[in-house]
Order: sequence, then C-alpha cells, then structure tokens
Amino acid sequence: MASRQVELEGHIIDSGMMGTCFGIIMDMGGSFEVEEFRIGRHETEESYARLVVEADDPDHLQSIIHELHQNGANPSDPEDARLEPAPADQVVPKGFYSTTNHPTDIRVDGEWLPVENIEMDCAVIVERDGDGPRAYTEVLNAIEEGDTVVTGEAGIRVRPPERPRGRDGAFGFMQGGVSSERPSETTISNIAEAIAETKAKDGKVLAVCGPALIHSGAREDFARLVREGYVDMLSTGNGFAVHDLERDLYGTSLGMDTESLDHPRKGHKHHIYTISEVIRAGGIEAAIEEGLVDSGVMYECVRNDAPYVIAGSIRDDGPLPETITDAVEAQNAIRGQAHEADLVLMLSTLLHSVAVGNCLPSTTKTVCVDINPATVTQLLDRGSAQAVGMVTDIGTFVPMLAEHLFDER
Amino acid sequence: MASRQVELEGHIIDSGMMGTCFGIIMDMGGSFEVEEFRIGRHETEESYARLVVEADDPDHLQSIIHELHQNGANPSDPEDARLEPAPADQVVPKGFYSTTNHPTDIRVDGEWLPVENIEMDCAVIVERDGDGPRAYTEVLNAIEEGDTVVTGEAGIRVRPPERPRGRDGAFGFMQGGVSSERPSETTISNIAEAIAETKAKDGKVLAVCGPALIHSGAREDFARLVREGYVDMLSTGNGFAVHDLERDLYGTSLGMDTESLDHPRKGHKHHIYTISEVIRAGGIEAAIEEGLVDSGVMYECVRNDAPYVIAGSIRDDGPLPETITDAVEAQNAIRGQAHEADLVLMLSTLLHSVAVGNCLPSTTKTVCVDINPATVTQLLDRGSAQAVGMVTDIGTFVPMLAEHLFDER
Amino acid sequence: MASRQVELEGHIIDSGMMGTCFGIIMDMGGSFEVEEFRIGRHETEESYARLVVEADDPDHLQSIIHELHQNGANPSDPEDARLEPAPADQVVPKGFYSTTNHPTDIRVDGEWLPVENIEMDCAVIVERDGDGPRAYTEVLNAIEEGDTVVTGEAGIRVRPPERPRGRDGAFGFMQGGVSSERPSETTISNIAEAIAETKAKDGKVLAVCGPALIHSGAREDFARLVREGYVDMLSTGNGFAVHDLERDLYGTSLGMDTESLDHPRKGHKHHIYTISEVIRAGGIEAAIEEGLVDSGVMYECVRNDAPYVIAGSIRDDGPLPETITDAVEAQNAIRGQAHEADLVLMLSTLLHSVAVGNCLPSTTKTVCVDINPATVTQLLDRGSAQAVGMVTDIGTFVPMLAEHLFDER
Amino acid sequence: MASRQVELEGHIIDSGMMGTCFGIIMDMGGSFEVEEFRIGRHETEESYARLVVEADDPDHLQSIIHELHQNGANPSDPEDARLEPAPADQVVPKGFYSTTNHPTDIRVDGEWLPVENIEMDCAVIVERDGDGPRAYTEVLNAIEEGDTVVTGEAGIRVRPPERPRGRDGAFGFMQGGVSSERPSETTISNIAEAIAETKAKDGKVLAVCGPALIHSGAREDFARLVREGYVDMLSTGNGFAVHDLERDLYGTSLGMDTESLDHPRKGHKHHIYTISEVIRAGGIEAAIEEGLVDSGVMYECVRNDAPYVIAGSIRDDGPLPETITDAVEAQNAIRGQAHEADLVLMLSTLLHSVAVGNCLPSTTKTVCVDINPATVTQLLDRGSAQAVGMVTDIGTFVPMLAEHLFDER
Repeated sequence: MASRQVELEGHIIDSGMMGTCFGIIMDMGGSFEVEEFRIGRHETEESYARLVVEADDPDHLQSIIHELHQNGANPSDPEDARLEPAPADQVVPKGFYSTTNHPTDIRVDGEWLPVENIEMDCAVIVERDGDGPRAYTEVLNAIEEGDTVVTGEAGIRVRPPERPRGRDGAFGFMQGGVSSERPSETTISNIAEAIAETKAKDGKVLAVCGPALIHSGAREDFARLVREGYVDMLSTGNGFAVHDLERDLYGTSLGMDTESLDHPRKGHKHHIYTISEVIRAGGIEAAIEEGLVDSGVMYECVRNDAPYVIAGSIRDDGPLPETITDAVEAQNAIRGQAHEADLVLMLSTLLHSVAVGNCLPSTTKTVCVDINPATVTQLLDRGSAQAVGMVTDIGTFVPMLAEHLFDER
Repeated sequence: MASRQVELEGHIIDSGMMGTCFGIIMDMGGSFEVEEFRIGRHETEESYARLVVEADDPDHLQSIIHELHQNGANPSDPEDARLEPAPADQVVPKGFYSTTNHPTDIRVDGEWLPVENIEMDCAVIVERDGDGPRAYTEVLNAIEEGDTVVTGEAGIRVRPPERPRGRDGAFGFMQGGVSSERPSETTISNIAEAIAETKAKDGKVLAVCGPALIHSGAREDFARLVREGYVDMLSTGNGFAVHDLERDLYGTSLGMDTESLDHPRKGHKHHIYTISEVIRAGGIEAAIEEGLVDSGVMYECVRNDAPYVIAGSIRDDGPLPETITDAVEAQNAIRGQAHEADLVLMLSTLLHSVAVGNCLPSTTKTVCVDINPATVTQLLDRGSAQAVGMVTDIGTFVPMLAEHLFDER
Repeated sequence: MASRQVELEGHIIDSGMMGTCFGIIMDMGGSFEVEEFRIGRHETEESYARLVVEADDPDHLQSIIHELHQNGANPSDPEDARLEPAPADQVVPKGFYSTTNHPTDIRVDGEWLPVENIEMDCAVIVERDGDGPRAYTEVLNAIEEGDTVVTGEAGIRVRPPERPRGRDGAFGFMQGGVSSERPSETTISNIAEAIAETKAKDGKVLAVCGPALIHSGAREDFARLVREGYVDMLSTGNGFAVHDLERDLYGTSLGMDTESLDHPRKGHKHHIYTISEVIRAGGIEAAIEEGLVDSGVMYECVRNDAPYVIAGSIRDDGPLPETITDAVEAQNAIRGQAHEADLVLMLSTLLHSVAVGNCLPSTTKTVCVDINPATVTQLLDRGSAQAVGMVTDIGTFVPMLAEHLFDER
Repeated sequence: MASRQVELEGHIIDSGMMGTCFGIIMDMGGSFEVEEFRIGRHETEESYARLVVEADDPDHLQSIIHELHQNGANPSDPEDARLEPAPADQVVPKGFYSTTNHPTDIRVDGEWLPVENIEMDCAVIVERDGDGPRAYTEVLNAIEEGDTVVTGEAGIRVRPPERPRGRDGAFGFMQGGVSSERPSETTISNIAEAIAETKAKDGKVLAVCGPALIHSGAREDFARLVREGYVDMLSTGNGFAVHDLERDLYGTSLGMDTESLDHPRKGHKHHIYTISEVIRAGGIEAAIEEGLVDSGVMYECVRNDAPYVIAGSIRDDGPLPETITDAVEAQNAIRGQAHEADLVLMLSTLLHSVAVGNCLPSTTKTVCVDINPATVTQLLDRGSAQAVGMVTDIGTFVPMLAEHLFDER
C-alpha cells in the first residue's frame, strides 16, 4: 500500500471541488481518510480539507494524485518540481507533466512560480537566467533538446477557477453552460454588456468567425462591430475571408443586391475569381490599397488596424496570399491572439474555435454561438469555467448584438 | 402484358413532373412508349405528352398507374370513378382510393367534381343529394357504414401544384426548401411580406406554436402579433398555454422580472400552480374575465376573438379545462382551422405542426421555423409545394418578424 | 430576518449534494452558517451537516428551504406535514406541495410515512383509514374535492438517490450520462447485461418504442426480445403498432421482401389499409386470432401476454381500435406500466418517452437510445440518477442488443 | 436582345436535366424556344432537344449559357475553346472557365479532348506537346505564368452523370440520397456488396476516417478491413492516427482493457505521450519497425502497403512526423489518392471528407457515414450522383460492415 497527503483550500464545497476529488479517488479504486476539515462558516469564508489518499501501489497512487491535482487538490508536503532535460527536439522526458488550462504554479528552489501563458496539453519549461527562474508552457513541437521540462506530479499547484457566484458579474448569466431554454434576446443583451464592460476596461475582444456569418447575412453588422472598435482581433479561415471579399467584388457588379437573396448557383465561380483577383492585386491589403476592395470585414480589419489571422485548411480553395497554410505556423499565430484576448467570441466555426480554445487559459471569458448544439457543447466541454454557450442563428444573433451594443452607448 | 394510356399536361418539363413519371415507370419495372409529345415553345406555353405504359400483369400495371396518378399523370381514357359502399363503420371497401394533399377531381356521371376539403390519406366520399353529386374527403374514423367510397384508380385526376417560377410572388423566395445558407434577416423580411400580403387580401393566418416560443422570450412580441391582427388563429398544446399563463400569473408576483433570466428551478411548481389556479377560476376565459390573467398570447386570443385549439397530449400536466384531451376530437378541431387557413406559421413544434400539416392541402402557404433542421426537413417532406423552411432561433425570429411587420405599415 | 435549521446526511460530499445546497442558498440570495459538520472518514462512512439558513423574510426563507428540500436537505426541527382539503375537483389548496421523482416521506402524527407511487409534479394525498394513515401521489386531474393534500414544506423528507459509485453495479457504466465517445459495442453489451440481470431477479422490463424501430429494420429482432421474455411490457403509439402490422399484412403480399429495401412510395396507402383491415377484424387481438396477423411485435405481445399500451396522439391516422385516444386515460395506463417497471428501455421516441419518464421514480433504471442527441439529453435532464443515454442508430442497436442477449444465455 | 442555340442529348427527361435547364432559363430571367425535340420512345432510347435561348444582352445571355452548360446543355454551334495565357503565377486570365466535377471535354483544333483528372473549381490547362494537345485540370495555386488556360464558355462540353436506374447496380439502393427511414442492416449489407464488387474488379477503396471511429470502439474491425484488403488507402488526420497509436501504446500497459470502457480523464496525457514516443522513435513506420507499435489501423496500413495521407490541421497536438502540416501540400497528397479511388468511404469526419470530396469526379462511388445528418447532407450536396449517405453510429456500422464482408466470402 502507498499513501500521500493532499490538501484542498477555498470554496471547495460549493464549487464542487471536494465532491469531485472524493469521486475521483473512489472511481479510480483508491481510498481516503479525512484528517482535518474546517468548513467556511459563511459563504465568504473558505474551507480547508486534508486527506490521506491510499492505493495499492505507488504507480496506482501516482495516477490518483495526478487526477486530484488536475482538479485542484495539492500534495501537502510540497517538494520542488522535478526537472529533466528534453532528450531530443520535440521529445519530452518520460513522465513529463502535461498542463491543464488552469492557473498553475511550479515550485522551484522552494518558491512557487506562476506558469506563464498557461494552456492545456503543453509541457512546462523552467528557464534560469540572470533574473531568477521562470516557468512557461511550451507545445510539443517547439521543445528543443536540452530544455528543462517539469516531470512527475510533485511541486505543481493547479488552481481551477471557482464557479462564479451570484448574479452580479458580467458573466453571472453564464453559470449554467448551454441552454436553449433561455430567453434569446436577454442573453444577447447580456453578451453585449460583457463586451461593453471588457472594452470599458481596455480589454481586448477576439472574434473567431466561420463562413456562415457571411452566408447568413450578418457581414455588414459584423464589419461595423470591427469599425466601431468592439472587435479588436479576428481569427478565421480562408473561406470566411474569400466570402467576405466576394461580397465586395461581385455583390453588385452582376446586378445582385447583397441585401436580397443570392443566386446560389453563381457561388463557386465568384469564389475562385475573388481569390484570383486578390492574388493578382498582391494580397488583401494591396487590394484595399488599390481600391479594389472597399467594404466588409477584412476591409474594416485593415483600415482599423485590427490584426487578423487567416489559418489554412485542407478544404480551402486558393488560398489567399495572407492565408497561413502551415498548421504549426498558423497555431502559433492563433496562440499569440489567444494569449492577448480578454473576451473571445466564437461565431459559427468548430475548427477555428477548437484551435483558439486549445490555447486559452480557463480564466478567459468565452462566448460560443452556433446553431448546432453539438458544436456548442463540444466547445464548452473542453472549456473554461467562464465560457457561455448560446444555440442560436448567427444571422439573427449578430444584428441583435450590434443593435444592443450601439444602443447602449 | 397489360397496358394503359396516360396523359400529362401543363408545365410538365420544368416542374419535373414528366421526369418523375418516366422515373416511376422505370423504377417500378414497367416500360413505356411516348405516343405524342407537344412541347411548349415558350416558357408560358404548356406542354402535353401521351404515353402507353406497359407492365407484366394488370396488378403490376395498376400499381404503376396509381403512382403516376399521384404525380399528375392521368389515364387518357377517363371512366367514371368506381364507388362502393363502406362495409362497416370505420372500414373502407377493398381497393379504396387514398388521397394525396393535391387538388383532386373525381369523375361522376361523366363530370369531373372537385374533391372538397382535400387532405392526404383520406377516403373520398361521393354524396348524391338534390343538388347533384358532390365529393369530399373523410378520415377513416369518420366513415360510416354505407358511405359511398371511391375505389380503384379510374376517374380520378390529381393536379400537383407546379413549382413557383420567377422571383415575383410572395413566396418566390421559397423555391428551394430549407436553407441555412440564406441571409436570415432577408428571409424573415420576406416572410413578413408574405404575411402582410395574406392579410391585405383578407386571408387568414394560422399560427402553430410550441412552448419554446415562450421559453425563448418571444411571448410579448408574439402576443402583439395576435393583438394587431397578424395572427388570426392559434393551434397549440397544453404546455404552450400553461407557460404563457404562468408568465402572467407568476412572472412578477415572486419578484422576478420576466424580461430577465429565470430561476429555472422554480418552473415545475409554478406550472402546476398555474393549471390549478386556472381550473379554480373555471378555465382560461373565466380567468381573463375575472382579471386573474391580463396579458400574453392566450389573453390576446380571447380579447381579439382569435379562435384557438389546445390539443392534449400524453405528456401534459393538468391539463387546462380548454385542452381537448381526445385525440380524434382534437384532430377534428385542428382540421377545421387548417381548412380555413391561407398561411400557416409552424413555430417550434413538431407534434402540432405534423398534426396541422396532415390536414393541409398542398396549395396552402406554409412557413416552418425551428432550430432543429431535422424538424424543418420532416415537415417540408410531407409537405406542400408552397412550404418554406427556416432553421433559426424562435427567440430571435419572432422579435425580428414583429419588427418587420410593424415597420412595414 | 428569518432563519431555519436544516440537516444533510449521507454521502453528501461526493454525491455533490452539499455543494448543490450551498450553491442554492447563495444563488437565491440567502446566507448560511454551518453549525455542525462531521465528515465520513472513509468512503463507506456517511457524513452529516447541520446549517442555519437565513433570508430577508419568511417568504424568501421558505422558497430557499423549499429548494434545499428538493435537493435532499431537511429541516432539523421536523413538524408534521400540513394537510388541507382540496377546495374543489382538480384544484389544489394554496401552497400545496408538488413532488419530485425522488423517494419521499411525509410526517403524519409524528411518524414518517413513505409516499407511495412517487412521481414528479404530483400532489401528495394523506388518507386515513382503519389501518392507519397512508400517503400517495395524485395527479392534478384526479384530485377530488375534500382530498387531504399536503401543503407547505414542513414534515416532508426527500431522498435523492446518490450517484452510483465504482464499477461494480450493472449500471456502473452509466455514471456519466450521455456520451458519444464511448465504445458503442461495449455499451450495448453492458445494457444487455443490465437487462439480463433485471430478468434474473424477476424484474420487469418496459420498452417504450417509436416507429423508427420498425422503419430501421429492427422489427424481427425486437419481436424476438418479446418472445424470449426480455421485454415484459410495451408502451407505444398508434404509428408504431400500425407500421408493425403493416409489415405483416403487406410485407410479402405485394411481392416485396421485407428484408430488402422498401418502395417508400407505397407507404401511405398500406398504412391506411392496415388500419382499415384491423378495424374490420375487430382489433389487433381479433386479427391475430383469425390468423390475419401472424408475426411481429404486436403479435408477440399478444401471444406472450406482454401487456401493451397504445397511446393516441393528434398525428395518428385511424387510429386502431386498441389505441387509447383520450390523453388522460392513456396517461393513467402508462402510469400503471411505469410503476411496475424495474428497467425501462426508451427506444427512438421522444413523446412516449417523456410521458413514461414523467411517471417514473428516480430509482428506476432507464436506458434511452436515440440517434438525435437532443432527445437523449432532454430525457436524461428530466431524469433519474440511474438513467443512461446512448446516441446511436436504433436499426443497429436492436440487432446487436439481441445478439448479446441471446449469446449470453 | 442576344440569343444562342443549345442542345441536350441523352436521358434528358427522366434524369431531370431538361427540366433543370428550362428552370435555369426562367429563374435567370431569360426566355427560350424549343426548335426541335425528339423524345426517346422507350426507356432505353435517348432524347434530343435543341433550344434557342434569349436574354437582354450578351452578358446576361452568357451567364445563362454558362449555367446551362454546367448542367449538361451545350451550345450547338461548337467553336474551339478560347485559350489565354495565365498572366502571373496563381492568377487566372479574366473569364477563365471554372470546372464542375462532371466529365468534361474541351474542343481544341476542332477535336474534343477529355479533361484529365476532372475535379471541381479548377482551371483547365491545354498543353501542346509532341503527341498532340491534352487538357487537364489545375488548381489555382499551381497555375504558372504562361499556362494556357481555357476561358469563356465556348468549346466546352459537360456530361453530368445520369441518375442510375433500376435496382440492378451495386449502387442501385443509393438512388435517393440520405434516408434515416431505411433499414440499417440491409443498407450496410448493400454497402458491403458494393465494396466486394469494387474489389472483385480490382478497384481501389479509399477510406476517409475521423477519430470517432477509434473512440466508438470500431478500431479492431476497421484494422481488419485494412488487413484483409478491403481498404486500399487511408486519408485521415493527426487525431485519428494518434488515437489509434495511443490504443496500442497505452491500451494495456496501464492495465486497462481496450475492450472495456475507458477512464476518459486519462485521455489528454496519453495523447501527448503517444506523440512524443512516436517522435522519439522517428515516426510511425520506425515505431512499427522497432516493435513499439504492433496493432491497429496505422500498423495494418504499414504492414499491408496501404498508402496513407495524414493531413494536418490547426487543432492538432504534436503533430506526428508523418503529418503533412502544409495545407496545400496535404491537398496535393489527398488529390492523388482521390484520383486513384474507385470507391470512397467517408467515415465520421467532415473536414477530411470535404477535402477528399473536393477532388473527386462525380463518377466515383462515394459512401458517407455519420451520426450527424447535417454532415451527411452537406457532403452529398457538394456531391456526386453516385454518392450515398447513411446516418448511423460508426461504432455499430463498422462491426456490422466487417461481419457482412467476412461472411460474404
């Protein structure tokens, strides 16, 4: 038999953390004894518990401790984190620690260091330079031979965010995840408020957009959100950008009013034409510069210095010159955006939302909107404690959101 | 071998009717020869084709002729329809003719009589009284012993509506069935126009509503549509009515603003309380009369003489006194509404939409709105040539529809 | 300020009950102090907590106490339940207690009485006769003037089932609700095991079936499950029964092999013919008696004395003579089945599954299978702690289930 | 006014082609007159029609002619195709012809040349070398300055495949697109037959797989399909390959039986470990060579020389060394597979299925299986006339398919 002492601290009962930890031990075939337990007498007071966890053998114990750990229970006999050099480029040492997306500390030389740029499924590298040690996440493909990688479970502290309480915060309405039973307009007005609040604090809003936003007729309202500064960054794919540009280039030249309903059978040809024309011009910015393109989402991003990342995919036509075709390079660009964002709007795209979501810490506010409940659920599941999902039509959501934001000023 | 001559007339090529008929013959293992074919030289000119259909034996031939028939091809050697008495209550004679939802004529005494109140899966009864014969549909459970029922395929003419052409008509936008690729706001504005047009011609609008309409916060806007006369009749279930009344009775008494987000855990109790209170008052109308209820959809229906049918189901609580618990009786009430309607809005309910749809001729304009594409597809499939489906959020659809209707005036 | 003492007992931490209760108090704007807390030192030991809950006023307090109550926390100063006579038929006294689907006790004359036939959204009636008092649920529409109805929150004890622990029980695999990430075949084999176990203990299996079961080709395998005694009772609708009978009556007479793919365009007519033929014969049992029907699910039910309930709905054709067209009467028949069942299989029907689910206590094992994840989620949400959902194709599920059951013997 | 003569030939009525063309002209605001029409007197005889199409101006006319063309109507006054040099790399000349996925001929020097490797949304390049001219498709990003590109509509002939007739062919059951009303097991047995038939003719089967295939427990059966030669090529993503390898590497080492249900919370860590281990070994093939991996889908592909393409995406972890991270390079690899395939199985992946589907001619048999009807519909819509969709659970589909294939031998 092997045993280890672990501690839980904070709102461990009402956040469900303690119940989860008890459940993990039982589900994984271990046992436990509660050595000390102090309950917060009021809802503002924190609680504390110390348990001894037992398992059949050290390996079994370690796997339980590991799970407890990912859920906020920390060994009470903190040691320094174990550090081992990466044996080769893109190879981690055996037993490397794989991150969650929760705020995490690493114990180095008896001190707890916060891990910079936390995101899930990464290694933690500890770097020692003149200014003392620092710890940061690194994805597998960026690890270099000799990088000092955290291994094992010791000396690591994870702090999952607690479920927001009460109805005060901007995201108070988001407590219950996805719901199709909630009044749509009130939910949209709450999202508008969360955006306005983020902007009021000079926070940054990142929008992750799929082509349905354009198809569903929400392009003009969304472009206005960029123009008026409610969207600071755009993360999207080649399809979205081409559809947006196509509306500009062919929306009126063939006598079709983009306000009216399209002749869908024209779609394919314009699509390729648009890409070819933009390539001819030398790219999106050049096309805007020369006056070829003068409206739409990409136009507003360029004109208003809202940085955009267009990530390539195997289903793209073209692609546009600005599209980053290498998946690893594109992920790095997305990672940069994700780390800067204070609020993320995921609008009708599963692929790009997952890619962005993979890079987000669990503390970043996230709103996910899709007409397919499976998409919303999948995104929230990987998710952050501060994510809210809304199952609705992007073609009605964006106009209503814009109305609420512009009316609120 | 058996053979029979059939004719097709009208826009038989561009409506796809001729292709469909050729396909049926081949799929069912028959063969055909085209004896005469006159094509409309212009798009306004009708075409005509006469074929001889052959099959292995008379039974096989009859089954092919039957299918052709349901798709608009008629035997060119019209005989009078065969008529046989129903052998017992609720029992049809062998080989009885089961209707489509398309306009249909029956040949009696050498004359073609239009079938009254056409709807699908019914028998056709021919009644001879002083004013000459008339033909009408009858559902199985209403057939009485001795009713004169049409049997076989002879003497029956079906006229499936042709696909609407061009962009002129109110429902021109509806040509392609369901699409999630269409601009949402433009589609909603087109639906608003179709409603306005129907009202301008003194037509009647029937709304078929599910409880999601209330949950999603669209209650006030929908109630206004009733109040302002855009909705003439309501077909719904016990759940919808109770939720609507519950908002009135408990929406504010417990300090909750119905504009805000609900405490969902209160739901069940209020639901039963509402039913009990309404029963105590003697029903919905009595509750309105005594001032217990003074807002909402049911309130506006009663105040504005918009007839409503509340059909019961096995998942109901209560039910309310006005709920028709017998399925056959409820169907008859629904049938009456369906036959009077010129435009039907099916809003977020599969059960009630199917029930209403079963009673509609294929010539009645139908709009089906649901967030679940499977529901929309299922309804359009049974459906009418003039049905349009929209996959969207009822909680954003109704407010936008109301805005378009009220702005249009 | 108003306050009240409540107690929690059992596996209140790992089942999440304590966290839930703390959350409720905070969400509803109350506050609390923990007076006593004894934690189970081992996973087999129960815990105990006593809190004082405070709120602004007695009404506010009562609404919090009520919620706590529904979630397993009981006032520690038990009084007898308050009893009031129903003022009229189908009308409850003000403040009546509306049940959950969890095991519940009522305190009468200082003794706790278990509530018989517990199901949710009912009133509790206390009846005093010669053998001492008894308590049972009653639906709103069955309440009669003068019935003694429980009101308020006092003297009521609710015991929500705890989340099953470990991997031992038959339903151990069901802990996490719906999952599409689980191996399909293993899940089916676990369901087979749960059925076999139920039968081994002389338990009763109730199958709730939708017409997709027949369409998807699973009829023969399902009929065999009835024949071999794995399904004891059937709860279904008119559509299912007609489709099942139609396969028997028209599956071969028109030269179609029911093993092969159907000519779908024949469907409608056979449907009505089938109903008419069965009516002519005098009903399903008469049709089997006279040899008209000699295979299929309804046939096996009749031959093997497996009671069935065919509940009517407004979308039915016909209906068949055995179909109960009155919703209230049908609910009562369904209620009888639900109360007898030890395991319920809900197979591809939302309407009937909800109707049955409404009558089930939270202690009845329930398996819900549907290809639409929304249906599965909706059923589990209303649901029981012992429900498991599986998103799969009923047309492959039933054959695989049958294979596992027949192989296991 | 402008006008032009066009011709239609073949089974133009029962395939719906003629109706479609008439519809296009009317929808686009043109008019037409039928100059000649000869109808096939029997179902085996082809028909012929010659129309004069009129429009307001030459531009309008050209856009109508273009649409007709894409749907099989060809100008009756064939000229040679117009050829223009590409003005720059990745830029097409104005008015370039964008391909459909249907068999297409180009008229060069008075002769019709079939276009090689037809796929949709490409340019057609005409190359003149010693052996006479040839025509082939080229995607936008591969076009080089000076390539001779087909422009305009003249000298191009498109032959959309006709709807298969009768019940004879292997894909006879596929006529109606997606259906959830079809018997699942019979449909699976038909798909098995189509695979067996393809193999009997030395055809190649390409499987396009998503990770759900592994999660749902179908890995062993699918690996056997590769081993026994029913799957010749694999097109997939990094996630699928990692999950497959993870089952091999960690399925048993941690004491979990892969036949049983997983501890899902272990997933993330094993995922990264697997990638790291495979990178350490030098890639998948090296890992197999050194005995690290000895079962599963990737293993069978390597052992049985079934070429695979692992295409990267922005949501990948790692990725594995064999993953092609550049989207354009990955598309080219996929294109190579698609052009070689005679039957394509698309199994539970939208992204990869769309990528493969984009490269397929409309004559390649395609089976698309997914539990989400929207995925199936989306794939069939882009699709080929010989595509069949099945909405089912991949975790039950693959085992049943394997059973049918192995029993059939």
